[in-house]
Amino acid sequence: MSAFASHESATKISAGESISAEEIASSGATAPEPVAEYALRLGDDALMLSQRLGWWIARAPELEEDIAMSNIALDLMGHARFLLTYAGSAWGKSEDDLAYFRTEEEFRSCRLVEQENGDFGQTIARQLIFSMYQYHLYTALQRSTDSTLAAIADKAVKEVEYHVDHASQWILRLGLGTDESKRRVGEGLTYMWPYIEELFTDDDLLDRLDGVAVRPSSLKEPTMRSIEAVLAEAELDVPEVAQARLSPELRDGAYSEYRGYILAEMQSLARQHPGATW
Amino acid sequence: MSAFASHESATKISAGESISAEEIASSGATAPEPVAEYALRLGDDALMLSQRLGWWIARAPELEEDIAMSNIALDLMGHARFLLTYAGSAWGKSEDDLAYFRTEEEFRSCRLVEQENGDFGQTIARQLIFSMYQYHLYTALQRSTDSTLAAIADKAVKEVEYHVDHASQWILRLGLGTDESKRRVGEGLTYMWPYIEELFTDDDLLDRLDGVAVRPSSLKEPTMRSIEAVLAEAELDVPEVAQARLSPELRDGAYSEYRGYILAEMQSLARQHPGATW
Repeated sequence: MSAFASHESATKISAGESISAEEIASSGATAPEPVAEYALRLGDDALMLSQRLGWWIARAPELEEDIAMSNIALDLMGHARFLLTYAGSAWGKSEDDLAYFRTEEEFRSCRLVEQENGDFGQTIARQLIFSMYQYHLYTALQRSTDSTLAAIADKAVKEVEYHVDHASQWILRLGLGTDESKRRVGEGLTYMWPYIEELFTDDDLLDRLDGVAVRPSSLKEPTMRSIEAVLAEAELDVPEVAQARLSPELRDGAYSEYRGYILAEMQSLARQHPGATW
Repeated sequence: MSAFASHESATKISAGESISAEEIASSGATAPEPVAEYALRLGDDALMLSQRLGWWIARAPELEEDIAMSNIALDLMGHARFLLTYAGSAWGKSEDDLAYFRTEEEFRSCRLVEQENGDFGQTIARQLIFSMYQYHLYTALQRSTDSTLAAIADKAVKEVEYHVDHASQWILRLGLGTDESKRRVGEGLTYMWPYIEELFTDDDLLDRLDGVAVRPSSLKEPTMRSIEAVLAEAELDVPEVAQARLSPELRDGAYSEYRGYILAEMQSLARQHPGATW
């Protein structure tokens, strides 16, 4: 962690009004182990998607869109910082320890966020699915009995509202645009669709987090309703493809073939120079 | 350009309170040709440095620093959007036309911003030099008789103040840190130093922009004083290296060997799918 208290106000993003990663770290709030495991899942989802979206910096089809996509990536990285900082409190680890010094097997991200960016339509298809899921997740998590998780959710949901709006507007623009744009975003949706079910699958961890965590299965109906409403307005079909097979060990040992590639890029510099700027 | 009016407020960055690229485009303000040439220089500097700094997304040594550097990149891209939009008004071109569809020879960026990122210390060395230069430039440009340039400078200087602060704090941290950090940032300064003189060199264009543009030569003394004050506090030597040879055709035909590489990455997607999202 660097020592610039001025970052937060100067960057005007992600960290903010009500909470910051530094405040979580210095608050002394220690996450009980199951809560930390849960925070790690949410944090890893945000971190991995942030890395994926960061690829678009300097590559978007318009300067304005480049800025928009990069800002969404930074929002997600901000959320990841909160969640990893809180998760790390259970094990005496910093957000940077968790981001840069875990192995592939130790990440807990879902497969959807790790899928390839593909073209712009494919990236936007993932944005629609994932931001709708996150919107319903964080909305419910605001009522968590864990006050740190509730505060993180409260902060994050305001930004995710914009991500939902951004994705929805693009889905409409592409779905109602040219034959080519409609075809491409349709293919993007079909590519991402098999990884939806994992978002809504409960496992044993949830049994230990009653009132603290949001049951993934409870998010399925509202999330799918929201997604399908946008697709209908954009005159796009709901893809009819089978769901990817789920490992019995949910978010544990089963991950996409892309994770290693994402981590290689993200971790290489920090690992070359552990514990220092170098 | 996409149709999301909500971008500007939601992203809370770069476009802002007093001015936006959309407002410049819709204001009907048309830059006289010499003003457009001048705006192009400033805009290309910001755009190229933004691309260079964007590389650090997902590669910074700390999550917090990753966010800080990315935000600086986005600030600069915001400034580039203003300046290219205004420049384009002289030729009926959009910011995207100018960013994505010019050749290497048609860019007007200085060589400093195109130099390689190197390690973190080298990047920070460039940030110190360039943000100090930009700070003095935009401070003076606020008094331009061209009201659009004055408004852009007024908006940009507030963000550049943060860039100066960020770079200065890092120079101090590295200069006063370990032997290794001191050595590395010193090498970074030496690497970047030969490209300083170009920032302060006048040419014929300036003769046609009295009261509109800021004479580069007038910025040398205050900028160097600011830079040297930070170096002194950080106990770093002012590098003693020769300046790179300047082409007689300043910012015209002479550019770094790196420009083509930067443009290849930035332009490839837009060129594959001109005039559309694809």
